Amino acid sequence: MSFSMYSASAPVFKQILGGLSAIIDKAEAHAAEKKIEPDALLQARLYPDMFPFARQVQIACDFAKGSAARLGGIDVPKYDDTETTFADLKERIAKTLAFIASVPQDGIEASAGRDITTGSGEKTKQWKGQTYLIHYALPHFYFHATTAYDILRHNGVEIGKKDFVGSF
Amino acid sequence: MSFSMYSASAPVFKQILGGLSAIIDKAEAHAAEKKIEPDALLQARLYPDMFPFARQVQIACDFAKGSAARLGGIDVPKYDDTETTFADLKERIAKTLAFIASVPQDGIEASAGRDITTGSGEKTKQWKGQTYLIHYALPHFYFHATTAYDILRHNGVEIGKKDFVGSF
Repeated sequence: MSFSMYSASAPVFKQILGGLSAIIDKAEAHAAEKKIEPDALLQARLYPDMFPFARQVQIACDFAKGSAARLGGIDVPKYDDTETTFADLKERIAKTLAFIASVPQDGIEASAGRDITTGSGEKTKQWKGQTYLIHYALPHFYFHATTAYDILRHNGVEIGKKDFVGSF
Repeated sequence: MSFSMYSASAPVFKQILGGLSAIIDKAEAHAAEKKIEPDALLQARLYPDMFPFARQVQIACDFAKGSAARLGGIDVPKYDDTETTFADLKERIAKTLAFIASVPQDGIEASAGRDITTGSGEKTKQWKGQTYLIHYALPHFYFHATTAYDILRHNGVEIGKKDFVGSF
């Protein structure tokens, strides 16, 4: 049984972003039930200089699409950060997952040794595909996905780790 | 360039737990400087029915050691959860990393198709090594490591994503 760059990336993004989408449904239902203004959750932060929930979701999507594109050897699509509602965020996730599904699987599969560049100017970094995925893309992706979860949990939305881990 | 079960597991745990250890140093220094009782951080939670910081660190360690052991085909060592100080938690991390380093690399390397069992009784689950690592061990590990970070950040410890991501 071989271990592959594809199976370590695209299905993981699908699993965790799928979980996040279902979590957003629960947040929306919670807000409706408790008569909470959606922005109280969408703009909630764990600390004043941290990103709010909505931004955490956007960035999690960005790491997922950016990784899939770079590993697949194609251009990273640019998404405008215009989401202001739970529905918008779910659409962002759906758009991200549709993009990832469109990246040719064999391109990602062959990417362990691919040269990958992130950042620009002084912050430019060079990676090999495998190192990029394991040590950069996944840690950043999980960081934002978990923080999005933690923000909602901190605000009383009834979700559990099972929701975060999702299904695959 | 081949992609390997080993490189997708042991070095990742080392990177993220190393970051967490350095974060604990910052939390300890912060508590000392601001005359904060250590337990105010060690026992801090994001919500009353969530685990506190110290427990999040213990569980992150458990997912790391459990994954390395199961993938390596050896018994999972049992750690008592007796940590009550920052120093104890750093020791727990150090002990975890020493254990992971002791697991034969070729055992982990050959584990993509290994049969792995988690849980017991009704919660018993059967996995293949690759699926276990990608879809179970890493999501749970990152979940607890990030939540540990988020708890400290929420309590004003001056840390950033760079600290979380660590180095490798």
